[in-house]
Amino acid sequence: MAPITHPNIGADGWFRETPTMWPGQCMSLQVKEVLHHEKSLFQDVLVFKSTNHGTVLVLDGVIQATENDEFAYQEMIAHLPLMSHPNPKNVLVVGGGDGGVLREVVRHPSVESVTLCEIDEAVCRVSKLYLPEMAAGFEHPKVTVHIGDGFEFLKDKKELYDVIITDSSDPVGPAEVLFQDTFYKLIFEALKPDGVFCNQGECQWLHLPLIRQVLDASRLLYPTVEYAWASVPTYPSGQIGFLISSKNKRELRKPLRKFDEETQKALRYYTAEVHEAAFVLPAFAKRVVEGPKA
Amino acid sequence: MAPITHPNIGADGWFRETPTMWPGQCMSLQVKEVLHHEKSLFQDVLVFKSTNHGTVLVLDGVIQATENDEFAYQEMIAHLPLMSHPNPKNVLVVGGGDGGVLREVVRHPSVESVTLCEIDEAVCRVSKLYLPEMAAGFEHPKVTVHIGDGFEFLKDKKELYDVIITDSSDPVGPAEVLFQDTFYKLIFEALKPDGVFCNQGECQWLHLPLIRQVLDASRLLYPTVEYAWASVPTYPSGQIGFLISSKNKRELRKPLRKFDEETQKALRYYTAEVHEAAFVLPAFAKRVVEGPKA
Repeated sequence: MAPITHPNIGADGWFRETPTMWPGQCMSLQVKEVLHHEKSLFQDVLVFKSTNHGTVLVLDGVIQATENDEFAYQEMIAHLPLMSHPNPKNVLVVGGGDGGVLREVVRHPSVESVTLCEIDEAVCRVSKLYLPEMAAGFEHPKVTVHIGDGFEFLKDKKELYDVIITDSSDPVGPAEVLFQDTFYKLIFEALKPDGVFCNQGECQWLHLPLIRQVLDASRLLYPTVEYAWASVPTYPSGQIGFLISSKNKRELRKPLRKFDEETQKALRYYTAEVHEAAFVLPAFAKRVVEGPKA
Repeated sequence: MAPITHPNIGADGWFRETPTMWPGQCMSLQVKEVLHHEKSLFQDVLVFKSTNHGTVLVLDGVIQATENDEFAYQEMIAHLPLMSHPNPKNVLVVGGGDGGVLREVVRHPSVESVTLCEIDEAVCRVSKLYLPEMAAGFEHPKVTVHIGDGFEFLKDKKELYDVIITDSSDPVGPAEVLFQDTFYKLIFEALKPDGVFCNQGECQWLHLPLIRQVLDASRLLYPTVEYAWASVPTYPSGQIGFLISSKNKRELRKPLRKFDEETQKALRYYTAEVHEAAFVLPAFAKRVVEGPKA
């Protein structure tokens, strides 16, 4: 069988990311073997084995996860909101079709059910096949998977969830709608009165105006809105942010619980100290995130 | 005049970093114009104007600084040790030929003199010419520049400095010697009895074994040794670390002073909160950095 080719992989055997949202910079990873490529109903789906970063999942030319550093993102987007809620039982994940966030959510003993709503079945399918450590979350008895549009799914959900996480790609392509005010309103209505919402918050170094716009929109709905970040080497500029909002006034910067020793040992990024430090922003970002409205 | 060519710049107009110390991954920046290229006595020196990251200084194919994010590194490598010393008066910078660390050191009113010992005059020369905002530090009346080998320079220096900063490139090429035990011993002897040493500490995601090795060597000399890090998008994996050691037992994780309001306003990364958060490591790195000796 001829090797699979892909427009983002050069003749030199390097994958180069499509830099639509971060012009003039490009992360490249060396390819050992392309494992899968398809045009799904929604996007270009590529999976390759890299020389040094494990298996890599790419959507529309943008790295979504590498086996070597995915834990940083998955742990933080899950544990920041769950540890900021006193007793999270019902959790909804919008997006997150690779299963990594599910894997982290079910570590919390209080959680009784997690629903995943992913628009693109291809992401779940290829992750189960090629990224089994990430997709392990799918196997958990508390997990229900719904393949469909997050917008549609949320329309009739009222005060159902303790925590909602939107684990989406960037606001171009299928995830664009997940960054719009009408979607935030649906999320707000689907949360219980003391619910916590966490969404992927882009990068302080690249997207401060977008971050501020989403913060302002969130602050119209939620009394408490905070911004945190984590180091993820294969995301643009090596970091990604998280917007965490609470329906009631609440301290989000300090975790309300600790993991038991065994669970904490299994974690590779999150600790109680990391939780608190994640909300400390570099001066240039703090001025925009916490500063007066433009 | 024909445009300057360089082996790291492709026909597509993108600069690609030489990944010797981070195999399988590569940061690329789009080039607007090559400003300077020379083989100095010690290394390949390249300066180019990028499309989105300002002017970029490259040594031996590795990005040293971009105008857009250099402040993160310069502020942290200078203010972490200076703010951990009760009254820093005499400061030595080994390396740092771009002048950025000098610019930060002289912000501290207690500092009476700063000496820069850079091996390669070419770095100072091209930085003054093409990166004037970084090289601004050279103009300060408290600054003395010595062009020469750090090893040689330190040989007769005993208990002279309150703070020594080694702002070096990676331990391949001319900076290799700066990561060796004999060099650390010279630094130790050149520090006053309550002196603080800060050196460039590579990347947690890429170089944990090297970091641990340097930590162990430092712990043989200093009673207090800590590891901190900062987010710098154009460094490999988007972050860099700092080893901070003190000749007397001392709290390094909390700053001893605050900048006055005006100075703090001029900073773009460092704040007192950032200082403390910088010492909080992701779980995987904390285990190695703070764990038992292998």
